[in-house]
Amino acid sequence: MAWFYEHYKDISATGIHTTGLVHEERSAFQAIAVHETKGHGRLLTLDGMVMLTELDEFVYHDLLTHAPLCAHEHPRQVLVVGGGDGGTVREVLRHPSVERVVQCEIDERVTRVCQTHIPSLASALEDPRVELVFEDAVAYVQRHPQTFDAILVDSTEPIGPAAALFGEPFFRDIDRALRPGGVVSSQSESPFYAPDVVRGLFGAVRRVFSSVHGYYGIIPTYPGGGWVFCMASQSRDPRDIDLERVAALSARYFSPSLAQGTFALPGFVAELTAPEPTP
Amino acid sequence: MAWFYEHYKDISATGIHTTGLVHEERSAFQAIAVHETKGHGRLLTLDGMVMLTELDEFVYHDLLTHAPLCAHEHPRQVLVVGGGDGGTVREVLRHPSVERVVQCEIDERVTRVCQTHIPSLASALEDPRVELVFEDAVAYVQRHPQTFDAILVDSTEPIGPAAALFGEPFFRDIDRALRPGGVVSSQSESPFYAPDVVRGLFGAVRRVFSSVHGYYGIIPTYPGGGWVFCMASQSRDPRDIDLERVAALSARYFSPSLAQGTFALPGFVAELTAPEPTP
Repeated sequence: MAWFYEHYKDISATGIHTTGLVHEERSAFQAIAVHETKGHGRLLTLDGMVMLTELDEFVYHDLLTHAPLCAHEHPRQVLVVGGGDGGTVREVLRHPSVERVVQCEIDERVTRVCQTHIPSLASALEDPRVELVFEDAVAYVQRHPQTFDAILVDSTEPIGPAAALFGEPFFRDIDRALRPGGVVSSQSESPFYAPDVVRGLFGAVRRVFSSVHGYYGIIPTYPGGGWVFCMASQSRDPRDIDLERVAALSARYFSPSLAQGTFALPGFVAELTAPEPTP
Repeated sequence: MAWFYEHYKDISATGIHTTGLVHEERSAFQAIAVHETKGHGRLLTLDGMVMLTELDEFVYHDLLTHAPLCAHEHPRQVLVVGGGDGGTVREVLRHPSVERVVQCEIDERVTRVCQTHIPSLASALEDPRVELVFEDAVAYVQRHPQTFDAILVDSTEPIGPAAALFGEPFFRDIDRALRPGGVVSSQSESPFYAPDVVRGLFGAVRRVFSSVHGYYGIIPTYPGGGWVFCMASQSRDPRDIDLERVAALSARYFSPSLAQGTFALPGFVAELTAPEPTP
């Protein structure tokens, strides 16, 4: 019996009561660990940062996936950038229109560890519609113009290799990789503890896409609990969500009511995600 | 330099980097402490539980106060139950229709400590419209029938003396203390870590009031980040909020957009706060 702590920016910390270390290894990219916990199911950490717990992962995966896929008219081809645990793919597969989902994860070991130790997420990767690619998503996206109806950026924090996934060049590549009517979503960090990351990401996305909207959810085991997401498109207001498809999902978080309310941002989050004033 | 940790139900923990102990005492009711922190401003704890930090207290106080006061047609007399730190009173006073606000806090020492050490909240208590009462709110509410337009239940967790503030008898007393058209709000704990408290409180309120609605906000330093609030009335849908008055507040959290979206609950929170199925 012990406690896992993630200290964030030396100002706050999240603690989770762990009851055993299930797996631990050092991959070519990072330290991977899976813990059993007392109240959170299994816990996945990368370099000591919480990636998910089985208690609250549904919030993150619902928001990252169902918002863009229910905003797109008929998503067939979907790319998940990162997301090696399989949770985003699992939610993508619940959309009957999806014919193929590519998960492009830089670190194959994350996926293999989750397939063995967190099957509640990674077992989805066995579906025949899934294609696993293990390489840097920046290169993959550049090689696949006009390919995807939706791209879901399921990144880690913007340090190390993931930093590129928060910049304008990457979103220009994403724009090229989307088919007409395509939509992109990205996790966008904490408005309390990383307001500069939120502002920087939205600035980058706004310089590329014409319709950009923030939304906000609560993930207890992420620093600050509150987590911003970004959804963008060139062609339509991505908040124009198909509520019938949302209802059919029967999702634990992304209900039809929530699908409308989640774009109603608190004042201070709206400020962080707003277009920069023209000088 | 040290860390303050609140361990919650032995399953999760919140950590805050503290840089010094400003004040510490044991009152007749509880241990009171004020810390200076690195990234959260001042921190108030009672019996080792985070009551507020200056970084994120605006979320809690905005939601507990502005939702009911902007739902009421013209609130003149307001009662704050608990809330000894003064933050709720500070927000109540921003509503120009308010003529008198009573803060009924069981522990005078909480208020006195905050007046000395957290003036960003407690200095509001010097306003001539404020009446400070230091006694058990249950008895106070019982003695004041037909008195208040809004009652804001700013309680601690439902243990010790605060447990009564979560029960049906207290809400029956509140119903009697409200004037016609009156509205009550209550903080209602975490849907992730205290789902039984959420369900129990909404059940109690629903047995007393005809119109009951949950709403949901993000307070990073509370266990789980996500926090449920309850608003209830006998006479009108309390979600019918005056958006012009909301806009005039220019609140950091409770924007007009948020005032509408905050009632759009995630699926799992809607379930916890829904009426119990009739057998």
